[in-house]
Amino acid sequence: MATTTLHQTIKPIEVGILGGTGMVGQHFIRFLDGHPWFRLTWLGASDRSAGKKLRDAVPWRLDGEMPASAARITVSESRPAGAPRLVFSAMDASVATAIERSFAEAGHIVVSNSRNHRMEPDVPLIVPEINPGHLSLIHSQRETRGWSGMIVTNPNCSTVVLAMALAPLMQFGIVRVIAATLQAVSGAGYPGVASMDILANVVPFISGEEEKMQQETQKILGAVLNGEASPLPARVSAHCHRVAVADGHTVSASVELSSKPSHEEVRRALAAYQGVPQQRNLPSAPPQPVVCMSEPDRPQPRRDASRGNGMSVFVGRLRECPVLDWKFVACGHNTIRGAAGAAVLNAELMLSEGFLD
Amino acid sequence: MATTTLHQTIKPIEVGILGGTGMVGQHFIRFLDGHPWFRLTWLGASDRSAGKKLRDAVPWRLDGEMPASAARITVSESRPAGAPRLVFSAMDASVATAIERSFAEAGHIVVSNSRNHRMEPDVPLIVPEINPGHLSLIHSQRETRGWSGMIVTNPNCSTVVLAMALAPLMQFGIVRVIAATLQAVSGAGYPGVASMDILANVVPFISGEEEKMQQETQKILGAVLNGEASPLPARVSAHCHRVAVADGHTVSASVELSSKPSHEEVRRALAAYQGVPQQRNLPSAPPQPVVCMSEPDRPQPRRDASRGNGMSVFVGRLRECPVLDWKFVACGHNTIRGAAGAAVLNAELMLSEGFLD
Amino acid sequence: MATTTLHQTIKPIEVGILGGTGMVGQHFIRFLDGHPWFRLTWLGASDRSAGKKLRDAVPWRLDGEMPASAARITVSESRPAGAPRLVFSAMDASVATAIERSFAEAGHIVVSNSRNHRMEPDVPLIVPEINPGHLSLIHSQRETRGWSGMIVTNPNCSTVVLAMALAPLMQFGIVRVIAATLQAVSGAGYPGVASMDILANVVPFISGEEEKMQQETQKILGAVLNGEASPLPARVSAHCHRVAVADGHTVSASVELSSKPSHEEVRRALAAYQGVPQQRNLPSAPPQPVVCMSEPDRPQPRRDASRGNGMSVFVGRLRECPVLDWKFVACGHNTIRGAAGAAVLNAELMLSEGFLD
Amino acid sequence: MATTTLHQTIKPIEVGILGGTGMVGQHFIRFLDGHPWFRLTWLGASDRSAGKKLRDAVPWRLDGEMPASAARITVSESRPAGAPRLVFSAMDASVATAIERSFAEAGHIVVSNSRNHRMEPDVPLIVPEINPGHLSLIHSQRETRGWSGMIVTNPNCSTVVLAMALAPLMQFGIVRVIAATLQAVSGAGYPGVASMDILANVVPFISGEEEKMQQETQKILGAVLNGEASPLPARVSAHCHRVAVADGHTVSASVELSSKPSHEEVRRALAAYQGVPQQRNLPSAPPQPVVCMSEPDRPQPRRDASRGNGMSVFVGRLRECPVLDWKFVACGHNTIRGAAGAAVLNAELMLSEGFLD
Repeated sequence: MATTTLHQTIKPIEVGILGGTGMVGQHFIRFLDGHPWFRLTWLGASDRSAGKKLRDAVPWRLDGEMPASAARITVSESRPAGAPRLVFSAMDASVATAIERSFAEAGHIVVSNSRNHRMEPDVPLIVPEINPGHLSLIHSQRETRGWSGMIVTNPNCSTVVLAMALAPLMQFGIVRVIAATLQAVSGAGYPGVASMDILANVVPFISGEEEKMQQETQKILGAVLNGEASPLPARVSAHCHRVAVADGHTVSASVELSSKPSHEEVRRALAAYQGVPQQRNLPSAPPQPVVCMSEPDRPQPRRDASRGNGMSVFVGRLRECPVLDWKFVACGHNTIRGAAGAAVLNAELMLSEGFLD
Repeated sequence: MATTTLHQTIKPIEVGILGGTGMVGQHFIRFLDGHPWFRLTWLGASDRSAGKKLRDAVPWRLDGEMPASAARITVSESRPAGAPRLVFSAMDASVATAIERSFAEAGHIVVSNSRNHRMEPDVPLIVPEINPGHLSLIHSQRETRGWSGMIVTNPNCSTVVLAMALAPLMQFGIVRVIAATLQAVSGAGYPGVASMDILANVVPFISGEEEKMQQETQKILGAVLNGEASPLPARVSAHCHRVAVADGHTVSASVELSSKPSHEEVRRALAAYQGVPQQRNLPSAPPQPVVCMSEPDRPQPRRDASRGNGMSVFVGRLRECPVLDWKFVACGHNTIRGAAGAAVLNAELMLSEGFLD
Repeated sequence: MATTTLHQTIKPIEVGILGGTGMVGQHFIRFLDGHPWFRLTWLGASDRSAGKKLRDAVPWRLDGEMPASAARITVSESRPAGAPRLVFSAMDASVATAIERSFAEAGHIVVSNSRNHRMEPDVPLIVPEINPGHLSLIHSQRETRGWSGMIVTNPNCSTVVLAMALAPLMQFGIVRVIAATLQAVSGAGYPGVASMDILANVVPFISGEEEKMQQETQKILGAVLNGEASPLPARVSAHCHRVAVADGHTVSASVELSSKPSHEEVRRALAAYQGVPQQRNLPSAPPQPVVCMSEPDRPQPRRDASRGNGMSVFVGRLRECPVLDWKFVACGHNTIRGAAGAAVLNAELMLSEGFLD
Repeated sequence: MATTTLHQTIKPIEVGILGGTGMVGQHFIRFLDGHPWFRLTWLGASDRSAGKKLRDAVPWRLDGEMPASAARITVSESRPAGAPRLVFSAMDASVATAIERSFAEAGHIVVSNSRNHRMEPDVPLIVPEINPGHLSLIHSQRETRGWSGMIVTNPNCSTVVLAMALAPLMQFGIVRVIAATLQAVSGAGYPGVASMDILANVVPFISGEEEKMQQETQKILGAVLNGEASPLPARVSAHCHRVAVADGHTVSASVELSSKPSHEEVRRALAAYQGVPQQRNLPSAPPQPVVCMSEPDRPQPRRDASRGNGMSVFVGRLRECPVLDWKFVACGHNTIRGAAGAAVLNAELMLSEGFLD
């Protein structure tokens, strides 16, 4: 496939968003606004909003204004009939399982940010720089389930930040990882975290988050064996905290590496990291997926997470760990790299692989 | 010694504060206000403030009002002549070394919150619940240095929180610890952290803090051998972060324990923890040095750190760690348990041991 | 009445709280804990909580722990049968009207923090320092409505701060007032303000708040004529803003005064202000209802609102206004002076007036 | 002058920044990066930085990275020799007076954000949409002072927001204005506001700010008479507060208008407001200088101030004022529209008027 000419030759593909009126849906709407390959034409939501123009259905909760082209879309019910073939899912976990399956069954390509199917062994959990090859799980998924469509997922917002910082270290053999997160409130949706809980405070608990970080990281960094995801046997432990930050998750990690690389080897591996999205110049791919910072007190969520298009992960403070081998701080944008942007980059990868033909 | 009657029999001892006009000095002034054993009569500061009444020398930066009795004290120069025998040191590290030594040489008992002497092998680094026996280092200190006085120190604010949560686990054999902190801005003094650095942000770096947490924890939990502190050979790794919290440091830790205790054994050890300050009913001793919380999202700095007299450490979320053995969250008040209260409790311990006779 | 001996002679009166499981209810529970006159024995709530012990019915949302004596109370349905004669109402406005009336009809003394009855001409809207005489409205209230009980209300949280700062200026003839508020999130209950709305942000709107401040201030500072409240004819304009503060409402006001007092006359009137609660030494009365501050940058909500028992209003920055006559900044604790403490002080006033006999 | 073709015909003009290493200087550097008319080639600073490349002289304090073209500039001393003819002044008020004058005397065009010369009657204080004609003061300035150069100033950051919202109402006759501000910490430079002062707090005082807002607003909305600025005789009163916001000043104002326009007339005047920068399509001119918002709770600093290029002022909540005539909320970006962007737009205006020929 002539990937270098992708940008010129593609004519816009119509896409939809399941859960298009929610907070995550709004992040998708904003991220897709002006996208060179995808044109948003369909929004699925609950019966309550169906039939209304988006601008009349919900208030816009993000900065700036609701994109005009989306504002005019009449919200549909969350049923496959009439929806475009490619739909992003921004649905709440409480309803996503059945609806996503009904779309896949009806032939739709569901690129989902919801957690419901992530850990199923025949569902790809993709970070395009790290494990594009896991898309091959789609074949067994379709076969087993008898679907003409498919479900592809991206990880939880804090997992992406950790996984992107660990991926370049895979060459050294990851044995054990302990990570502590300081997570932004935008990750909890709207209304999400009550201000009384977080003002001048820390909440050292996010329901289900530690388990997701631990299991999803192992799956992303793992292999595909016999048509099933085979998790990396490294042990991962997460401590998750909510802090008074609007956007951007910070993850501090200690990691044990079997080949005992030097500081310079680790630093170079992080800085040189490139993947398929960069090689194919996918529209949402950051030029540098991992940006190494040398300032002593960076990265920081308010100053760094949004840089560029919000799709890079910033890593700094690489230093020796007295317990494991190396420790560092990573930071990324939770609603872009950790949600809407992640799913859109997945769809771009799938298009570049021919899955959308 | 009839410790049970200490409260009745003691007549107030005059005390002073070195660095009494700074931010830490103000925390000492507030903590000593109304103290049953100690009466503040002397404040030492730089030449600039000397000769002025405290109320004219500096603005009061803490909540509420400057205690009236302290406001009337005329600030002295930081010289031993005229100072009471017992002085607390709240001096900045840039000047503390020479001044603290000159006071000890002149026969004063210096109970210091400054970091300067903490790691010297003949200087006790005390948390009264944990290592009251380390006071025996004073003998070699006086002999070696030829001092008629002495210097006793308390740990760094984040170290106390970690050490108090680890001390009850010493019986299980601490092998390795990885800790991540989320620290309040009050720990940085005044003006301290610029608001542009911390509003809706995280700063993943505090100069020298990780080294202090690692080394001080080992010294506090260690032994005294041949008149010298002998650090615990456990390995400790710290990740320190500043967050938008006013008061209260949160520490999330994973710990490996050689005797592999059960969840219930660890929980019971934490909840049952008691030390000399509790046995002797020292005035600033919290009834429970470690308070175990069972709510899924506690402890939290704004809601818990100030409870009681701010001298307890709150521990929650005890759960298995996939990498080491157990993980938990600890939280304590950084300017009370982590600074002024820590030093005053040290002095109470010393008095109860007869060091102030 | 021998008010000076009130403290000695009273035996505890049993009281209840309507809406006792909500956020405002919890503020009442905390404020009543250890009260010398009132003993909390009854909590009314929705059917969902009824029959459970308080500790099993709801999580404690305030700092520290749920008071043990309240934790043991079995929650009742919100019906008069079995409730003590004196009940505080912390009910949500959506349900307060009918329930409060049913209690008053059944002979209960309802001391309400809810807004529902505040503006009715025969319902006293009381700030005990300002308009204790408005309690006389109870007579027409009972007569008109045929109630054996009564309803007495306290103002909205931001209104109290403004009214307390204006009351001492009544002697100069208040003509016009323009006030801007910077209000804490605790005023909005729980979950209340979404953290995404207020982190590093200002929300320049609080539903219904400006109207309440304008009308309630006029009623409190007004007279009673022919058994009806007669609002002060001064014009009042409010600009209300929510800010990222946990506790404490700040109000900046410009005021036109007909007698054109000097700066010193205004300052003295504020500082010397005293009312019936101070004269009678009511348990929740602050020694100084209005505390004048001379520091150039005070009062401040985090540093001042909680001082003493949280029942004073702090006023500073008194200076000439180029448009009206004088301007100043006032600050008070919104959940204490502006809610639970306000209602309890109302009940103390009523007891001292014999209304509870 | 053929203003419509300005964009095509101009070749980049070299510009410098006085105070180029400070916080305001960095805002200028960022705003000028990629400017179509101006090319930054010179940075003046204190002797301490002179001789170093910018990247070696100071850390970058803003979000993202130091623009590469500026990073390479070698910092000069703050002397006219070698500086470009057009220099922006971002100097601290403590040093700006003498240095700005020395540059004007030496023939430089000083476009200053400093407050030092703003209120001098022969110095234009310009908001290009409002009073471009005040540039005529330059003639008397040069004549009186014997300068071959000139000094032109822009207002204080909070003044711009108020003045932009008032300017469209000038047609109705502005009689009196009372304004309360809620100002971001970025307005105070670096380190600026201590985090201990502003976390979960309000500081109701900003030194000199109220006087600036009152006087500068009168000058901007005033006339030029006999070569001198003649302030508008409207009375203006300001209440200034610092709040925990990173960027964006909010101003709530009540205004009395002599012609008593209707709600619709006021709204239309605000929404239709256009000025010379819009007519001439100056590069930094916002398409709409005043954006009217109809949502009940907008504008908000975090969500609105940065919209577009940060050069619009957002106005909402237009409603009747019970004391004056109308009240509303305005919000604008304090470091863009209120500082660097304001000065650059002044320079663009001056260029379009031929002052830079």
